[in-house]
Amino acid sequence: MTFPAPLTGVVPPVCTPLTPGGEVDVDSLHALVDHLVGGGVHGLFVLGSTSETAYLTDRQRERVVTETVRQVGGRLPVLAGAIDLTTPRVLEQVARVTAAGADAVVVTAPFYTRTHPSEIARHFRLVAAASPVPVLAYDIPSAVHSKLPSELVLELAAEGVLAGLKDSSGDQAGFRRVVTGVRSFPHALDPAPAGGTPVALTRFTVLTGSEALVDTALAMGADGAVPGLANVDPHGYVRLYRLHRAGDADLARAEQERLCALLGMVDVGDGARMGGSSAALGAFKAALHLRGVIACPATAEPQVPLSADEVARIGKYLAAAGLL
Amino acid sequence: MTFPAPLTGVVPPVCTPLTPGGEVDVDSLHALVDHLVGGGVHGLFVLGSTSETAYLTDRQRERVVTETVRQVGGRLPVLAGAIDLTTPRVLEQVARVTAAGADAVVVTAPFYTRTHPSEIARHFRLVAAASPVPVLAYDIPSAVHSKLPSELVLELAAEGVLAGLKDSSGDQAGFRRVVTGVRSFPHALDPAPAGGTPVALTRFTVLTGSEALVDTALAMGADGAVPGLANVDPHGYVRLYRLHRAGDADLARAEQERLCALLGMVDVGDGARMGGSSAALGAFKAALHLRGVIACPATAEPQVPLSADEVARIGKYLAAAGLL
Amino acid sequence: MTFPAPLTGVVPPVCTPLTPGGEVDVDSLHALVDHLVGGGVHGLFVLGSTSETAYLTDRQRERVVTETVRQVGGRLPVLAGAIDLTTPRVLEQVARVTAAGADAVVVTAPFYTRTHPSEIARHFRLVAAASPVPVLAYDIPSAVHSKLPSELVLELAAEGVLAGLKDSSGDQAGFRRVVTGVRSFPHALDPAPAGGTPVALTRFTVLTGSEALVDTALAMGADGAVPGLANVDPHGYVRLYRLHRAGDADLARAEQERLCALLGMVDVGDGARMGGSSAALGAFKAALHLRGVIACPATAEPQVPLSADEVARIGKYLAAAGLL
Amino acid sequence: MTFPAPLTGVVPPVCTPLTPGGEVDVDSLHALVDHLVGGGVHGLFVLGSTSETAYLTDRQRERVVTETVRQVGGRLPVLAGAIDLTTPRVLEQVARVTAAGADAVVVTAPFYTRTHPSEIARHFRLVAAASPVPVLAYDIPSAVHSKLPSELVLELAAEGVLAGLKDSSGDQAGFRRVVTGVRSFPHALDPAPAGGTPVALTRFTVLTGSEALVDTALAMGADGAVPGLANVDPHGYVRLYRLHRAGDADLARAEQERLCALLGMVDVGDGARMGGSSAALGAFKAALHLRGVIACPATAEPQVPLSADEVARIGKYLAAAGLL
Repeated sequence: MTFPAPLTGVVPPVCTPLTPGGEVDVDSLHALVDHLVGGGVHGLFVLGSTSETAYLTDRQRERVVTETVRQVGGRLPVLAGAIDLTTPRVLEQVARVTAAGADAVVVTAPFYTRTHPSEIARHFRLVAAASPVPVLAYDIPSAVHSKLPSELVLELAAEGVLAGLKDSSGDQAGFRRVVTGVRSFPHALDPAPAGGTPVALTRFTVLTGSEALVDTALAMGADGAVPGLANVDPHGYVRLYRLHRAGDADLARAEQERLCALLGMVDVGDGARMGGSSAALGAFKAALHLRGVIACPATAEPQVPLSADEVARIGKYLAAAGLL
Repeated sequence: MTFPAPLTGVVPPVCTPLTPGGEVDVDSLHALVDHLVGGGVHGLFVLGSTSETAYLTDRQRERVVTETVRQVGGRLPVLAGAIDLTTPRVLEQVARVTAAGADAVVVTAPFYTRTHPSEIARHFRLVAAASPVPVLAYDIPSAVHSKLPSELVLELAAEGVLAGLKDSSGDQAGFRRVVTGVRSFPHALDPAPAGGTPVALTRFTVLTGSEALVDTALAMGADGAVPGLANVDPHGYVRLYRLHRAGDADLARAEQERLCALLGMVDVGDGARMGGSSAALGAFKAALHLRGVIACPATAEPQVPLSADEVARIGKYLAAAGLL
Repeated sequence: MTFPAPLTGVVPPVCTPLTPGGEVDVDSLHALVDHLVGGGVHGLFVLGSTSETAYLTDRQRERVVTETVRQVGGRLPVLAGAIDLTTPRVLEQVARVTAAGADAVVVTAPFYTRTHPSEIARHFRLVAAASPVPVLAYDIPSAVHSKLPSELVLELAAEGVLAGLKDSSGDQAGFRRVVTGVRSFPHALDPAPAGGTPVALTRFTVLTGSEALVDTALAMGADGAVPGLANVDPHGYVRLYRLHRAGDADLARAEQERLCALLGMVDVGDGARMGGSSAALGAFKAALHLRGVIACPATAEPQVPLSADEVARIGKYLAAAGLL
Repeated sequence: MTFPAPLTGVVPPVCTPLTPGGEVDVDSLHALVDHLVGGGVHGLFVLGSTSETAYLTDRQRERVVTETVRQVGGRLPVLAGAIDLTTPRVLEQVARVTAAGADAVVVTAPFYTRTHPSEIARHFRLVAAASPVPVLAYDIPSAVHSKLPSELVLELAAEGVLAGLKDSSGDQAGFRRVVTGVRSFPHALDPAPAGGTPVALTRFTVLTGSEALVDTALAMGADGAVPGLANVDPHGYVRLYRLHRAGDADLARAEQERLCALLGMVDVGDGARMGGSSAALGAFKAALHLRGVIACPATAEPQVPLSADEVARIGKYLAAAGLL
């Protein structure tokens, strides 16, 4: 389907259910897609960090896109991460996921290399020139170890290189500069500029990846959110979005706080025994398994699985949130 | 005066006006205090980063507190930073600033050393035990290179060690955990805890130092803000706070966005020629000088002064905001 | 050929010559291989950082291995990087480069994800279990943003998981712990241990990637070096290695200092205009082009090319070193 | 006494013995000074990281200098750290420690603030202009979170601003640039420079703070070392230095490896319970206490003390090194 401009609402980064042997569990993926679509979400984002894209082979990545697109059946836009180290490799990922049906691609700055803002800009320009679908920038310094400067995002937005931003930087002030900037461009860049093209920029999509700050991101003017926790509780985030649209800030905040309490599950995994990815993705998958959505809570190698005790504590979070 | 519990509203971190020779300009400090009190602010915070406390000698620090307290004359609470490397040195700073009249002290984690959360906790316990006034934690990873864990802040709050938090971390999700946690303690820490003492925690003060996120911090439930930019435009932040209290989120957001545009002044200083402290503090002082509040825009050594052209650009920001 | 245990001497990380259009320039790659083998080096390492592996597609990576192995013709061992984000993807890279003829693989810790030492250990165990050839750990924190703890390297060495270490961490004290540890294992780990298997460890290969510290690394007991600058001046590094073996520390140091002066070329590229990868790889390729070894100095997208003036300065470095 | 130019040999960073109540234990300090002077060291460095300068009040710092200078009685030069956040505060520390008798001061870049190389340069120029004794730069990124660029050190050396460098950066390649640069200045900066003043630079002192790399630092041409571990085993480091001077690289390396094994004591303190400063300083003081040099192994607040079991393990390291 055509990518909306802008895309608004709740766009979960879809977990990738795996079999005990580490293969994509297609039946569970279909079930998870139905769970999310049934929860009222407004789009799906596959092959992001929450999808364990870092752990999936190219063949598995392709299968995830194909099967998600098939199951969605055009009801919602499907965004796909095209995650690889630098431009030439990202271009191959873009080709692969768009051939599999993605409606837009989400692309990070180069990583592993010692890069520079001018190289990051060139990277996005080359990717956008080659992509058959809109390109969203994925700002995720925890993974790529550089931050996308707000000014660069606005510049690439104004040029039409970028169709949107998925912000997982945690930098809410920078996020606000983009949100405000695309609305008032080019006035945000300088207090007394000449001319400008504010109209086109209103079509730029700004999404937050901060699960605990969706209400405030929306209040700032963000178009929507990409919360990993929405795998577990899509209804909650959809409710939050609707409360915001209805102008009920107090109830939106209360819903957000309920979701923040639920989000505590990502800290259950013992940090002395596992990394943050294992803990967070393990928690989401354990919760999906406990809720009966997916058949197996396994995460990909070399992540460390949650212990039985940790899974039991995930269950308590679900129970406290009324999700069991 | 007695420190309010909680302290609410706008608490500017007061710039320290200097003479061309680098001494504290007491007349300008008095004028700045009057400018801020006249702007309707609810407290003053001296000897924080915005006060160039890192650049002031002990004698100068003492004078700043003494003269601020004198000029305020009990109309508002005066908080003072007690900034030094570790516990024994901080204890001396606490003694010095409280002898000079500070109503509360603001203290960071140890820095320069390779520290640990258990040492940070012990640090705050020792400081609080020795301080004659309430102690607020100052979370400023950009300066001390460690982040105060939300759980530790809540733990020290529950113990009565900390009376509040001044959060300059930029981590809004962690900030929210504290804001929500002190309201609902101990339920925020675990979905099924035993007993608790929620009452005392409501007196804990949570202040944001993020100038661009005051509206959303207040919307989350923060008590107030410590915005460096309030030196330049105290009326704006006070207006924003009042709009929030009146429940008018849309106008509060509009006021915040106006202030965000004004905040652009901190990026005027050329990053190829100076560090971030020079650029931000130089901008605030240039603006205060242009507005006629202080006699001299000098910053302390070894900071790099703004050029005449850069000062002219600061003037444009003021003009655009209607402050000239 | 069988991978030597240990591999000793100079093992250049081979640049990947590209055509102006960004394809692998096979003729130039052959010429570069001949240049290096003719220079007396003891092994070749392809698909490391210096090879721009981060910028090569899987097809290009495969071609580099195939053509290098073909041109080497069994005269020297060929090590190949198997660089990808996590275990499942690295396993595919291992399969690809070993099918193409690599005699050993060089593997980093997982990156992009938030990992943990226990996950890094599991990663190497899984890769070693699946690899048909020996596995060397590639410690390169500037790229993967985690440091391989010396203790973990020694533990995996003792288990037979790792056959060697390519250390590009810059941490010479940690490097020394490994060099000394594999010689005296397990005594290095504890002053009073029980039993041990010191014999097998003597076959573990320890290589430094620090171009400016080869003499001191060898003096510590390292087996050899993987210096990117050896693309430009293989004879120099081979001479340095032979001087070390001959016990002539003073002449080895003089040769190292000559190479350090030559290494200054990596700082010619303007840091305000490009990142560190562009500057270093651009310098090596410009030098190889000026020396007539490769047909085109192009680096892969999105790297920034050196300017004509910068290339002229590279030429001065070559002239000063007597290489033009 | 007059500061030698250059200062060569072993210059231990002297631990500061404390009483159980946290005061400077002057008798133990005298005993430690005698222990070090008796061990044949060539200078003493007080008020550096190993001296817990970060934890000492100004009065305590002054006492440490006074008592060390008194006990040394002119037999050796005494260097003193003048550690504080920025120029104005450092100038006060310089005045204090030189009034107490220090023969040279050791000064870091500004910290806590967001600084810039141009500000760091200005900082050192202002400090040197005001200091009555030579100024050495203290490069310690783990504490101040910026690295002194080699080029800046060479520039300030050539200007006569800096009399030396105490390098605790761990960056041996950068260290080598300084060592080589001061010998061949200005040729190290450019392959074809004009004129120069190489003579003066030979008086510049380059000292390494890397305890495990003293042999290789000396082999590179460093003048000496400032090893914290020399508190515990001054004879070992003096022996190492003499072996180097005698040209016996193999025995120097063997002595260094013996010291590296002893250095393992700094990892005895449990990292889950304490920070790196607590573990390293606690180990040195426990060793000095076990060896009978100081009366009490206490470290300053808020550091975490070693457990009895950990102290017992320190004893095993001493026994294995023949120091008990």
